[in-house]
Amino acid sequence: MAESLNLATVYVSDAQYNRNIFFDTSPQAVRLYLLYNHWIMQMLVYVFIITNLALALLEDPAVVPVPIWATSTIEIICLSAFTARLVHYAKVIPKEKFWKDPKNICFIFIVTLSFIDLTIYGALKAAGYFGVRWSRVLRPLLLVNVTEGRQLRRAFRSIRNALPQISYVFFLFMFSVLVFSLIALKLFGKRGLLTIDGSSYFTDYFEIVFDLYVLMTTANSPDIMMPAYNYSIFFTIFFILYIVVNTYTFMSFFLAVVYNNYKKYLKEEVRQLVKARRFKMCRAFSVLQEAWGEGGELMVSQAKWNLLVKLVKPNISIAHRELLWSVLDDQKKGHIGKLAFVQSCDLLSIQVITVRSQAHPLLNCFPFVYNSAASRFIHHMVRHRMFVYVYDAIILINAVFIGLDEENPVVSNAEWGFLALYMLEIILKLYATDPRLFFARHQFWNWFDTIIVVSALLGTIINSALKHAGGYTSRQILDIVFIFRVLRLVRLVDSIKRFRAIINTLIKIGPTILTFGQLILVVYYIFAMVGMELFKGKIQYFEPNSTRPGQEYCGNPLLKGTTFAKLNYCKNNFNNVVSSFIVLLELTVVNQWHVLTSGFTAVTHVSARIFFVLFHIVVVIIIINIFIAFILEAFLVEY
Amino acid sequence: MAESLNLATVYVSDAQYNRNIFFDTSPQAVRLYLLYNHWIMQMLVYVFIITNLALALLEDPAVVPVPIWATSTIEIICLSAFTARLVHYAKVIPKEKFWKDPKNICFIFIVTLSFIDLTIYGALKAAGYFGVRWSRVLRPLLLVNVTEGRQLRRAFRSIRNALPQISYVFFLFMFSVLVFSLIALKLFGKRGLLTIDGSSYFTDYFEIVFDLYVLMTTANSPDIMMPAYNYSIFFTIFFILYIVVNTYTFMSFFLAVVYNNYKKYLKEEVRQLVKARRFKMCRAFSVLQEAWGEGGELMVSQAKWNLLVKLVKPNISIAHRELLWSVLDDQKKGHIGKLAFVQSCDLLSIQVITVRSQAHPLLNCFPFVYNSAASRFIHHMVRHRMFVYVYDAIILINAVFIGLDEENPVVSNAEWGFLALYMLEIILKLYATDPRLFFARHQFWNWFDTIIVVSALLGTIINSALKHAGGYTSRQILDIVFIFRVLRLVRLVDSIKRFRAIINTLIKIGPTILTFGQLILVVYYIFAMVGMELFKGKIQYFEPNSTRPGQEYCGNPLLKGTTFAKLNYCKNNFNNVVSSFIVLLELTVVNQWHVLTSGFTAVTHVSARIFFVLFHIVVVIIIINIFIAFILEAFLVEY
Ligand code: NA
Repeated sequence: MAESLNLATVYVSDAQYNRNIFFDTSPQAVRLYLLYNHWIMQMLVYVFIITNLALALLEDPAVVPVPIWATSTIEIICLSAFTARLVHYAKVIPKEKFWKDPKNICFIFIVTLSFIDLTIYGALKAAGYFGVRWSRVLRPLLLVNVTEGRQLRRAFRSIRNALPQISYVFFLFMFSVLVFSLIALKLFGKRGLLTIDGSSYFTDYFEIVFDLYVLMTTANSPDIMMPAYNYSIFFTIFFILYIVVNTYTFMSFFLAVVYNNYKKYLKEEVRQLVKARRFKMCRAFSVLQEAWGEGGELMVSQAKWNLLVKLVKPNISIAHRELLWSVLDDQKKGHIGKLAFVQSCDLLSIQVITVRSQAHPLLNCFPFVYNSAASRFIHHMVRHRMFVYVYDAIILINAVFIGLDEENPVVSNAEWGFLALYMLEIILKLYATDPRLFFARHQFWNWFDTIIVVSALLGTIINSALKHAGGYTSRQILDIVFIFRVLRLVRLVDSIKRFRAIINTLIKIGPTILTFGQLILVVYYIFAMVGMELFKGKIQYFEPNSTRPGQEYCGNPLLKGTTFAKLNYCKNNFNNVVSSFIVLLELTVVNQWHVLTSGFTAVTHVSARIFFVLFHIVVVIIIINIFIAFILEAFLVEY
Repeated sequence: MAESLNLATVYVSDAQYNRNIFFDTSPQAVRLYLLYNHWIMQMLVYVFIITNLALALLEDPAVVPVPIWATSTIEIICLSAFTARLVHYAKVIPKEKFWKDPKNICFIFIVTLSFIDLTIYGALKAAGYFGVRWSRVLRPLLLVNVTEGRQLRRAFRSIRNALPQISYVFFLFMFSVLVFSLIALKLFGKRGLLTIDGSSYFTDYFEIVFDLYVLMTTANSPDIMMPAYNYSIFFTIFFILYIVVNTYTFMSFFLAVVYNNYKKYLKEEVRQLVKARRFKMCRAFSVLQEAWGEGGELMVSQAKWNLLVKLVKPNISIAHRELLWSVLDDQKKGHIGKLAFVQSCDLLSIQVITVRSQAHPLLNCFPFVYNSAASRFIHHMVRHRMFVYVYDAIILINAVFIGLDEENPVVSNAEWGFLALYMLEIILKLYATDPRLFFARHQFWNWFDTIIVVSALLGTIINSALKHAGGYTSRQILDIVFIFRVLRLVRLVDSIKRFRAIINTLIKIGPTILTFGQLILVVYYIFAMVGMELFKGKIQYFEPNSTRPGQEYCGNPLLKGTTFAKLNYCKNNFNNVVSSFIVLLELTVVNQWHVLTSGFTAVTHVSARIFFVLFHIVVVIIIINIFIAFILEAFLVEY
């Protein structure tokens, strides 16, 4: 009995969390499987993955340099944990299933290669040779191939599916760039025009191709056009045509192709998920079913169902469980059929906000005071619309005060007043509403308000204590207090209905954006690892007061007089993983990416452009479009 | 009879062209209405509108200066033509309908104001005073309010409908910018940081708001971040958060809102159009109907239907008409009911490609030669797949030759060879296919090939004739010949099936893009007129060899040392309508728009930013998103 209940629980919770694992159904395997899916185990996996990824902060080129033995030890621990997790998984599912699953093969591959690389690197370093930690580019792929990375795998699958269509459009686009470049070469090449820095204009075919690729991204507009425009106004036709065709039409085409595929694929995925969920619920039913009545109909009794629900959702209240049962067993038979049982999966997923009509704690303690006329007046006041308006007005006035100079004593004293008013608001609300309702899980804005106000209050108190104690003001504490103060203004958004709707949409698409964040992390990490190997130490940043020479050309004479150095981009380098990520973000934003590229090609070789163009294709053309497709679809569904 | 047939014709052609005009049904009005819809009349209206718009080329500040009396005369002629057209329209539709239609009111308003403005301006100029031709901003609105501007009105309606939702998102976005600006002011303002040109960094709230607005458009990334980044790496968090929230999330939201509205509205519009079309066909039926048979069923006879079709589509072939009838009257009764009659509207709209199985003209003239074995061999060869491959290879070799130096005699002689090969291809194809089929209207690529090759041939002949005659080579002719030569490469696209599909999609969404082009023209024209009044003559461009002083600061000392002048943007000015349009295009592309803005604010006042921010909101946030929504939807339907 306990075993069949365990099995049914596993099926139901797999259906709930859309897990798609064909585990062994032997009692022992089921117990192992339950352990495998325990939240602590899952959290541990992510802790190890994040630790493993974070090693890049300590490894050469490091943010915080640490001896190799330390990073190696941490990495070995992480890799061992991954191995243990995989062995656990192998014990849960049948052998033939295990070896057929590409994600397991990938996982083994990554872990093995990491061990090999680590050994080789350690040996090379011990012998004093040069070594490259090439397996670091594989690390983020663990995020994809881990059992829990379902959403991320789906995102990658959707990219893979869109890839053929994207590549057709991309080749046509590249063909167009090549043809336009040929025209540009012949139109401008022989006219002896000069660019703003005095170099010859449009005379080398491959330079033109790159320049026009950059123009497609708009990053060198209108500068690239100016010499031709200054020569003759008719030449602008060439550039206008180019921008209309390549920037607007092709770029919209890319979005359209991605969106089209995403939509098509999403529908198919949802269909598959629903099918798999139903299948699992049927399996759970067949485990728990009993013949009932004269017809021998297969049913599940309320008692069994209750036990199941208690195991699947331990935190569910009895009232909630009873409610669900009454929905399923609408004829009050005491047992349900297959159809109703399958439905119970969706019912269990619904978030029910249980409004307990309990009395306010103060009413229990001081019934006489709480029911007095004065108390009733407070209740009435807090619930009145004017209360909201008054506080909106206070926030607006506060906004003006925030804009003023905080060293003015009037302003800094007013801050205490505002804090008192906000605390009063929270206290009044807590007086009028049951605190358990006020701080219910879905009450986003109440939590937001309280945290912001209390944090600001604490910060202000600490700051003024420090000031009185030693006349010392911490800039950091002031900054943090200040940010809390400004965040209070965000509350205004909640007062305007239309804004609230937009914010709710944003909150709802949050989980999707999280998946997207992981996707971006994987791609950034890979490019950062490659970028660091290619460009580390080539461009240096010196503090403004540094006495070391070469500050004006980022410590590399090859950058003398370049736009990169002139714009003071020295800190945009690949000298550690954090600055690499910042450079990649700047490249994602696209603006000035050709200047960044020019800096790195100047200190290495012109072929370094490949790295940057590849990044542009992968991140801007593919991933950002996927992101927009994400948001478009989420918006169309939610808004 | 003739009158009722006329009336029915009008209804059917209104249904065909989606005209929605409630004309008077008196015979005289119907005749006037037929005249009103005549293609010559419609073309004339557009000629006058374009002339009226083109006046901006001649009016001060002019591309080609012309005396005021000349432009005024042309404008009076145009305005008179518009008045005549409107009077004609007033005679066609009932009075009460005429005065209820907002587009007529707008039209009268625009024409009247233009007359008034012209008079005042003439008087002021005659008296030697300063005058502004303010009514010029109204001119492009004629394109919208003219009877034929249905598509354009629909586009404007779709913008108007999306406007409330866009503005909610916009206000929330602006709120976010204001809050971020406040944080920036407090975080960076007191740290004494300096920008690259030595000015103080983030110390003025309104400057910060503008800078962060520009950052949302990505145009000043990463420059705006660098001083804070150089100070502390933690400050990049602020900018990353800002970009994620405002650039990515809000900008995607704008697209989502526009797309959402566009889709919703499009569906409604299509529903309305279908309804209106059916209504008109019913009206036409009721004009032509006769009672038939014992039941007195209302029917339309084939004879009447034939007369109607002849009037509606004069160019339709008898075979095509017979085919349509046989589809409608599938039981061969000789008359059709209301349902079939209403259907005939859609049937008439279908483009039927009539492949006349006529003999090749040469077969008629020289049957013996054309049927000979050699001739048959040529037929076989031309239709073989290898023929296509061989010519693709020739084009590829040609591409290499184009890339080489054309002054090399081998290359210039090879060009004659290539031209001969292309001419041979066309002649062979014409020999194998009926020329009437080869040059049928839908044979886009045949037309393309022939025009490109023949033009290149003519150009090359003229050029070599000029060279032999006087040793003189015209750079212009060479350029044009060269472009034709390169365009030949485009033919390769047609050989690859996937590319052909993409190109066909592009061709199909052509008409939609045309409407969009008009939309952009209207907005650009209005902004150009306002921009010219605000900024004309403030920034000058001098030819490189000019002896006039101030070349390095665009003739305006206020621009000394500014980025605008340093980047040699002097030709980006509002000194005539053509350069205004080019500046507006550059602003649409967004990159460096803050530098362009800084130039114009430097020579006028900081409030000139309003003009540029407004342009950004209208064109980039609204219209470009509408364009992307256009393409997304067109693509999802067509591809
Ligand atoms: Na840009």
